[in-house]
Order: sequence, then C-alpha cells, then structure tokens
Amino acid sequence: MIRISLDAMGGDFGPSVVIPGAAKALERHPDVTFIIFGQKAECEPLLARYPKLREKSVFHDCEVAITMDEKPSAALRRGRYTSSMWRSIEAVKTGEADAVVSAGNTGALMAMAKFCLRTMANIERPAIAGIWPTLRGESIVLDIGATIGADAQQLLDFALMGGAMARALFEIDRPTVGLLNVGVEEVKGQEEVKEAGRMIREASLSTIAYHGFVEGNDIGKGVVDVVVTEGFTGNIALKTAEGTARQMAELLRSAMSRTLLSKIGYLLAKSAFDLLREKMDPRKVNGGVFLGLNGIVIKSHGGTDAEGYASAIDVGYDMVRNALNDKIAQDLKTYHARRLPPAGPEEAA
Amino acid sequence: MIRISLDAMGGDFGPSVVIPGAAKALERHPDVTFIIFGQKAECEPLLARYPKLREKSVFHDCEVAITMDEKPSAALRRGRYTSSMWRSIEAVKTGEADAVVSAGNTGALMAMAKFCLRTMANIERPAIAGIWPTLRGESIVLDIGATIGADAQQLLDFALMGGAMARALFEIDRPTVGLLNVGVEEVKGQEEVKEAGRMIREASLSTIAYHGFVEGNDIGKGVVDVVVTEGFTGNIALKTAEGTARQMAELLRSAMSRTLLSKIGYLLAKSAFDLLREKMDPRKVNGGVFLGLNGIVIKSHGGTDAEGYASAIDVGYDMVRNALNDKIAQDLKTYHARRLPPAGPEEAA
Repeated sequence: MIRISLDAMGGDFGPSVVIPGAAKALERHPDVTFIIFGQKAECEPLLARYPKLREKSVFHDCEVAITMDEKPSAALRRGRYTSSMWRSIEAVKTGEADAVVSAGNTGALMAMAKFCLRTMANIERPAIAGIWPTLRGESIVLDIGATIGADAQQLLDFALMGGAMARALFEIDRPTVGLLNVGVEEVKGQEEVKEAGRMIREASLSTIAYHGFVEGNDIGKGVVDVVVTEGFTGNIALKTAEGTARQMAELLRSAMSRTLLSKIGYLLAKSAFDLLREKMDPRKVNGGVFLGLNGIVIKSHGGTDAEGYASAIDVGYDMVRNALNDKIAQDLKTYHARRLPPAGPEEAA
Repeated sequence: MIRISLDAMGGDFGPSVVIPGAAKALERHPDVTFIIFGQKAECEPLLARYPKLREKSVFHDCEVAITMDEKPSAALRRGRYTSSMWRSIEAVKTGEADAVVSAGNTGALMAMAKFCLRTMANIERPAIAGIWPTLRGESIVLDIGATIGADAQQLLDFALMGGAMARALFEIDRPTVGLLNVGVEEVKGQEEVKEAGRMIREASLSTIAYHGFVEGNDIGKGVVDVVVTEGFTGNIALKTAEGTARQMAELLRSAMSRTLLSKIGYLLAKSAFDLLREKMDPRKVNGGVFLGLNGIVIKSHGGTDAEGYASAIDVGYDMVRNALNDKIAQDLKTYHARRLPPAGPEEAA
C-alpha cells in the first residue's frame, strides 16, 4: 500500500485536473490510496464522478488555496497550517502519507516543504530534479531551479542525491553522473564546478560512476544518467530545451502544411508524428522531484492536464516504492562518515 | 570594396573548407577581396581550382598553424607574429583588412585577438555573440562563451554591444534587448542580473529598447532581438538548444522510417523536411562575432563545411558594411559621457 497526499487546489486548473489525474493514476496503480486536500465545494462534485477514486481516498476540506502567483513568503504567512498545500505536505510529516504531489506554485511549495519537512541532515539546500527525455531514454537533471548558485560541496550533494534518485527511478545499480560545464577539458569552466569535479573524484563514491564534465548538447544525447548543475543554469537549460522542441514542432507543422503533397505525406506519416509527439511530450516527463527534504515531494507542472498530473503521481509512486529517501540518507551517511575528521579527545572520552 | 582576411589553417578541415568557402562567398559578394594566410603547400593547389578567388585575393605563406586543441597560452607563445591565425588578425590591426574570419580554436582566437587588437575603450571584457534561429527569424545571444561570469556593468556593456550588432545585422533602428533570467518577475534571479536590469532601465538608452527579463523558452520564440547573459549560461543554453534540435531530428528520422506508410509519407513530404532542415541548419547561422575589440573578428564553427564557412564570411561582410564597430564605439561613448561625474577642478582648470 502506497499512500499519496494531493494538493487538489494547486496548478492552473486545480481540482479539475488533479482529481481526474488521480483517477488515472489509480487505474495504473491499484495499490495506491490518496489523501486529498482541497476546497469542498469544488472537489466534491468532481470526486462524485470517480467512484473508485472516492473509495480509495480520504478528503479533507481546506479553507485556503495558495494562488499561482503568490510570493513564497506571502504564501507561508497566509497558508501555513490551513492551506491545501501546507496540509498535504504535513500529511507526509505526520506519516499519514508516503509522498505529496502538488501542481501549485513552485516557490511556495518549496518554501512550505522546507519549513514543514526540514532539510535532511548534512544537506544545506534542497534541489529540484527534473526528468529529461533523451535519445537513450531519460536522464535526471538537477538543480532546475530550487536555488540560484551552488558551491562545490552543494554540487557534490546534488550528485549524491541525483544518483540516489536515478537508482530509485531507473532501477540501475551505479548511475553515471556528469557535471554540466562549458567544455569537457579539466581546465575550463566555473571554479565551483571544477572544485566539485575534484571533490567527487576524490570521494570515489561507490553509489555513482562519476563521468566528468558534460556539455549542454550531451544532455539530449543521454551521455549520463544524472546531470548536475546549479539552479540558475539548470532552469535556463531546461526552458531553452523546451523552447527549442516547441520551435521545431512549430516549424515542422508549418512546413508540412505548405503543399498538397506534404499534407498527404503528413497524413500517411501521422503515426510517426504521433510517436514523436509522445516521446517529446512534456506531460510524460512531468514531475520535478524535491530532493534533500525529510519527505518525498513531487512538483507537477502547473499547466498540465490530467494525463500529466497522473505522470507526476507515477513518479511519486516510484520514489516511494524504491525508497528514494532511504537511499539518499544512506549515501549521505556513507559519504560524511568517511570525510569526518578523526574523533577528538572529547568524543573519544 | 570590403577586405576580409582569412585564417586558412583554422577549423577541423583547414584550407579544404576555407578556400571553397571563400569562393562561395565571393560569388555572393563580388565587391569582396581576401587576404589569405596559410601554409603554401596546402593552400596553393586549392587556390588553383578557384581562379576567380585567386584573382581577388592575396596569399601569405605562414609557417605556423594553431591546432584545434592548443591551449590559448600555448598558442600565443608558439604562434604570435608567425601563425596564420595571428597574421590574419594583425591584418585588421594594420588596416589592410576590414574584418577577419577564422574557424580556428575559440580560446586561442580570442586570446590572440585580445592581445593583438585590444579591447575598446570602456570595455573590460569582450563577448562572443551568436546568431540564434527563432520562430520570428533570428536573434542575437551573447555572451556564448568568451568568459565565465559577468557583473552588472559587463552585462550592460553586452546589452549595448549586442544592440549595436542587431542594428548592423538586422538593419533595425532600436532592437529589443532582454536579460536572460529564471523568471520574468523582477524579484527573481541572480543579483548581477537584477542589478543589470536596474542599470539598463535607469540609463534609458536611446539605441535599444529594454524589454526586461526573458526565460530560456523565450529565446526560440524570438521574444527579443538580443538576449544578454554571461558566458557560462549562454554557452550551456546554446549547446542545449543544438542538442535538442539534433535529438528531435533524430527521433523524427527514426519515427519516419518505422512503417511503409510513414516512409511513403516521408517521400511525399520531403520538400517540407528539406525546408525544416534548412531553417534549423547550424551552418546557416554559423559565425560567432567577437564584440568589444578594436576590429571585427568572426569565429566560424570549427566543424563546418564550405557553405557554413561562407555564411561566416557573410556575417563579417554585413558587420563591415554596416559599420558594427563604429556603432558600438558611438553607443559606448554616449552612455559613458552621460554617466561621467562632473569635471573636477583639475580638468576644469
């Protein structure tokens, strides 16, 4: 049994996406139960349409709904203890739920999650990990926007956490990890990135295979399972890739409708285009994972539909089933145990 | 008459791409003459095949050729005064050429260009500007890798220089300029980017229309004519976009060859695909422009073919014809004249 709490009021479309999305996810994972937090007037009529979901879920009425443009500090002031966002996170803290999924505003969700769940021991800053479609399948990219900037130690923490997530998501033993940089030569790039490279190499971690530096074009090739960067660059890389994919789809569409022959060609090749669309479908790779908190928090894209929301629940399901946070905690413990200085006289006494 | 000097030994294929590329560019621009620097044994036989080019060019034999993997410092030590790269840049310094084009290694080219031409007054760091295909046409993105990091003043300089380049390249009066950031709200992002935004707004520059922040996905949409960022992020964004475009083309190709119907569809729609390929053709948008030096330096992609190299020459031609560096110098002068403190007693005396 896997128990997932849902912030029904999050996202551009609130419960009208969250509830059908949960129903879809339930069809795929009959061993899931939901705790749904939202405004009763909106949620009840929707839940009535999905009797199976209703049966496998508990609903809690919440007065406050955090809006998509609310600043994190304002959201905390207005919504702590009372909002659907807060309470769905709190369900993870109290142990009622194994993970929480929200399509709500990222800044508010991160602020509340940090405040409520706190960061794990030895983790200074949480990260948001995204799942990136590649030519070889999927890779994990982090941080895609939790915080701006990261020092070498934080980049190493991201490498550890991303590696644990890759083991949980892709079910592989020793994922490859690369540091995003402007060149693969050891001499190039930001100081923090170079220092992080040295530190990861020296730590000779058993849970990841450190690949070295990767460049922007290596992400889409799927050169490594985990790409590590700080949040500013990661966010810009992610959005630039999304923009390029949309741009190419747009150009293709307009090119295909230019002549009669190309229109016929389009119809004949429709199945191929559908396949392409599915492979690059942002809804399928929906779901950023907050890493480094005492609890599993999944961020669904705010503008997604029920299918995309269900994918975000899928990610949460996999993370719980494969014990993401135990893996992270174990990896951090192993790493920090080795780098601790020898016990001083006080501890030895 | 526009005079362009060429480093024939630069790039993965040296003169076998540079010389046919120059011949192509000459067909398009009969008012160009070339000064070609390279190793005689390799270049002479190639030049013999292009009599028109030979007639419109002067050849200088150079002993040293800089390799693609040579470190900038080593290239300077080994190739100063003697290499084809140095001498082709020097031709701009002495006034024999109006611009130089090289497909040689970027680090060495920038190091030599800085050493030989020096940066313009009031410019601390040069930038490399790339031309980015968008849904609306083309945009300029800088810096795509000249240096790592930039403070607010340097970002403002990039905005000024990119604006001047947009006026020269797109022949528009007042290009729109955006600062690349992780969110469009004024509160988000790196401190330097926020500070640069304030400074650009306060400077109320007459030569550019400041748009505010743009996000990664706005580049491909063509939201602004000029996107400003520091070199680390710019380089990663550029390479991520290239990787995504290649990834989509690859997925499309494999999808189109999956069934008989989709294969037939592909043949019927071939003209559409050719159009798409041409629009996204990296050779067509080849040519980074070094901005902020006392001379016009064009970097061609190292792995390009003759068509791509000719495009880089096209860019150089446009930059000379539209007086890029005069525009930059004028804009910098106007900006700095206004922000100078009132003359002190010494100057007033």
